[in-house]
Amino acid sequence: MLESRLLQHIYHRSADLRESHPHVLIGPGDDCAVLLTPPASLLKVDQLIEGVHFSCDTPIDLIARKAIARTLSDIAAMAGTPIAALAACVLPKGYPSHTAHALFDAVAKWGKHWNAPVIGGDIASHTDDHAPLTLCINIIGEPHAKRGPVLRSTTQEGDHVYVTGALGGSLGEGFQGRHLTFSPRLTEAAFLADTLGESLHAMMDISDGLGIDAARMATASSITIRIEGEQIPIHPDARAAPDSLLSAIQDGEDYELLFAVAPSAIVPARCPHTQTVFTRIGTAQSQGPMAAVLTRRGILVDAGLLGWDHH
Amino acid sequence: MLESRLLQHIYHRSADLRESHPHVLIGPGDDCAVLLTPPASLLKVDQLIEGVHFSCDTPIDLIARKAIARTLSDIAAMAGTPIAALAACVLPKGYPSHTAHALFDAVAKWGKHWNAPVIGGDIASHTDDHAPLTLCINIIGEPHAKRGPVLRSTTQEGDHVYVTGALGGSLGEGFQGRHLTFSPRLTEAAFLADTLGESLHAMMDISDGLGIDAARMATASSITIRIEGEQIPIHPDARAAPDSLLSAIQDGEDYELLFAVAPSAIVPARCPHTQTVFTRIGTAQSQGPMAAVLTRRGILVDAGLLGWDHH
Repeated sequence: MLESRLLQHIYHRSADLRESHPHVLIGPGDDCAVLLTPPASLLKVDQLIEGVHFSCDTPIDLIARKAIARTLSDIAAMAGTPIAALAACVLPKGYPSHTAHALFDAVAKWGKHWNAPVIGGDIASHTDDHAPLTLCINIIGEPHAKRGPVLRSTTQEGDHVYVTGALGGSLGEGFQGRHLTFSPRLTEAAFLADTLGESLHAMMDISDGLGIDAARMATASSITIRIEGEQIPIHPDARAAPDSLLSAIQDGEDYELLFAVAPSAIVPARCPHTQTVFTRIGTAQSQGPMAAVLTRRGILVDAGLLGWDHH
Repeated sequence: MLESRLLQHIYHRSADLRESHPHVLIGPGDDCAVLLTPPASLLKVDQLIEGVHFSCDTPIDLIARKAIARTLSDIAAMAGTPIAALAACVLPKGYPSHTAHALFDAVAKWGKHWNAPVIGGDIASHTDDHAPLTLCINIIGEPHAKRGPVLRSTTQEGDHVYVTGALGGSLGEGFQGRHLTFSPRLTEAAFLADTLGESLHAMMDISDGLGIDAARMATASSITIRIEGEQIPIHPDARAAPDSLLSAIQDGEDYELLFAVAPSAIVPARCPHTQTVFTRIGTAQSQGPMAAVLTRRGILVDAGLLGWDHH
């Protein structure tokens, strides 16, 4: 399969991009894309690798969906709104032309689905027989108009700490679980920033697992986050696990948001647009940079040791 | 090697980024980077893959250099100025920790060198024993203040067509040639846009080879570009080739610029800042979308068939 043919296919499909997305001045086909940008932009890159983030038997459409969705999860974590995407791909050696077309069409479709039209990209092919498919997605976003970007480093002493949704078991049986079909919490994050304003002190996504990511938020904010294990919302997918609470804390791939609000703020029970539940799981304290989970047995466990670290 | 440790190393190194680059509001370490952006931004993603774009024995510093430089070449092709970069990497299985540190330090160093500070990224590791190192670089740039973005699709009938520098033989002996050490033509492109203004009609980079890239410019502009083979500046690195002219037309990896100017414009012989030579090689004609090279034997050859297409 020649790269030129695939590029022609992409350029042809992208020809109407400017009509539907007037901020895209130049889309795919020139040396760079040209985009009308806000005064401040959010920028995020994330990768999706066969054998690491999805299995080789995952449908093309779900590979493309996850690649876009997981990068958008970081835009959501700042309460931002996506405005465009760039997609780079390394295809396995001898990857069928029609599958490559389908993959890029699916990436473009999911980008448009979440208002992140794909305005540029790069395609290369591996020369090695065993090298896996990789996708690298870049998202450009706009910060929340009033609240601005919500950082992870601005948790304050006394803050109430919440999560969206429910945690654990996302990878599922044979890697085919909801990590392939989750919705990035863009609507929920925008609702929280709209509703809570400056009382929304800090937020981040917990794709590496509540444990390790809560520890990261605590470290970034130079604070302790004490999590009440009993309060952690456990996803039904984790209930079959030998220890479902541990599963909820350390499985990762949840793509939910962890956020800290001023104790005086009233956090709605759920997002009125999506029905996603907001659950208070803990409190920010001043002892020092770590996150701890209080287990059912009354033992405080260093949450930073519970989670997904990429070897 | 744990990802967390490598990230800590990167965050520590990036702590002073905002002082040296005040448009970087939030650098590496949060869910997204936050960047002050111009009203219109140039966006480009490019990948560098072991075995495709460099050999396994290439020094780390030159791998990082080429990854940044080849993406900047596309910013140069629009006469833009880089403002920031994001870098994503998939490391081979068992990649040594100190080598990963050195690689990311080198990417950051070369980004700063060309005023494209690395403000975010992603690191993952392959699970397969034979999967190669890949780097994915995203550059955000600003269009030329007066001329705006210089497209490849705006060549006009009668335009004089030029190239920067000299072509051919860039890969060199054992893949160790100047494709690892070229300078993206940022200064040259800015000088041309400053000097020629609206007379600089079109421009693109010719990293896939003059032949195929001239054909792309011709197709994008719906015009024929007729190139006089005798006028093509042949790089000394190509002189040992069996046919040095063919080498100059089709080798690729030159990272020079092809540009079209109004016939009334006076193009300086060289860039006064870098001494890079500008050579007129042809003319845009109205016959239809293709590029043709007039060879020494007086034969017109379809230039689109001469170049590097990725299989």
